[in-house]
Amino acid sequence: MRARIFIRLKEGVLDVQGQVVQRALRNLGFEEVENVRIGKLIEMELSNGEEGRIRDMCERMLANPVVEDYEIVIEDGEG
Amino acid sequence: MRARIFIRLKEGVLDVQGQVVQRALRNLGFEEVENVRIGKLIEMELSNGEEGRIRDMCERMLANPVVEDYEIVIEDGEG
Repeated sequence: MRARIFIRLKEGVLDVQGQVVQRALRNLGFEEVENVRIGKLIEMELSNGEEGRIRDMCERMLANPVVEDYEIVIEDGEG
Repeated sequence: MRARIFIRLKEGVLDVQGQVVQRALRNLGFEEVENVRIGKLIEMELSNGEEGRIRDMCERMLANPVVEDYEIVIEDGEG
């Protein structure tokens, strides 16, 4: 089983890195860009597919629950 | 229009950060975890929705084409 985990800053949390990237894109001429947010993409294979355990991983290590949200997408596959 | 961009290290590129996270997860008891890869998730709104321009952004700024691949997912929506 493969899993993809998105880690995002919570809605109200200022995303400084996103602001810097947005400004840089606009300086390059991409004026259509708005509200850039930067998060993490974590991909893994699992020999035992329990989504509850992936949630545990997020809560205990992968995400900072004070300022980040996580989203888990399971991809069944050859793995 | 909203776009989601995944930036990943290319297949053959060693993902040191992924290895460190994998080891830490196993030390916490998540022995089922394999092949952890860590990338970036970039989300943005666009007032003008041309996917070709998002590709340009990736090639000119968001990704490092020597070691990274990118994937663009367009989400039409209220934005």
